[in-house]
Amino acid sequence: MIKVVAKCTVKNGQVNKFKECCERLLSETKKEEGNISYDLYQDINEENVLTFLEEWESPEILDIHTKTSHFTEVIPQLSELLEKDMEVNIYEKC
Amino acid sequence: MIKVVAKCTVKNGQVNKFKECCERLLSETKKEEGNISYDLYQDINEENVLTFLEEWESPEILDIHTKTSHFTEVIPQLSELLEKDMEVNIYEKC
Repeated sequence: MIKVVAKCTVKNGQVNKFKECCERLLSETKKEEGNISYDLYQDINEENVLTFLEEWESPEILDIHTKTSHFTEVIPQLSELLEKDMEVNIYEKC
Repeated sequence: MIKVVAKCTVKNGQVNKFKECCERLLSETKKEEGNISYDLYQDINEENVLTFLEEWESPEILDIHTKTSHFTEVIPQLSELLEKDMEVNIYEKC
């Protein structure tokens, strides 16, 4: 099992639009085989920091995810709303 | 429930020492009331990125954690092994 942290710093005034854009990605991704969890979280101290916290069965399954239409179509929309590049880390337990 | 991502960028050659220092913090923290999960993860692409992925019942419980002896004694040890400041985000689900 791997965990992914995909941290997004959203432009001021774009948080709601960002959340709307995420809805399709969230609902479609949760249906994918091999996805364990996939949710969007907001920092309680920095409201423009929104982060996907994800769990996947394997790196190979995650790779398939990144080739789905909902991923390839939504991620560019999200990127336009970001202050800086999405910070993605893929983790294995120590 | 809140989730915490505490991302550490460890100095080259200090990863093993960092993991050793974390052992006490990991074992003691898991015993704390109100802790749901608390584990150390390593980025599969960047071996010097080690991150605590945590789940707590509430921000108040997390606050108590930061005042425990294992926290106040170990965190300074870890800080000495870091390339840059620990990046901590406290999240609530959207």
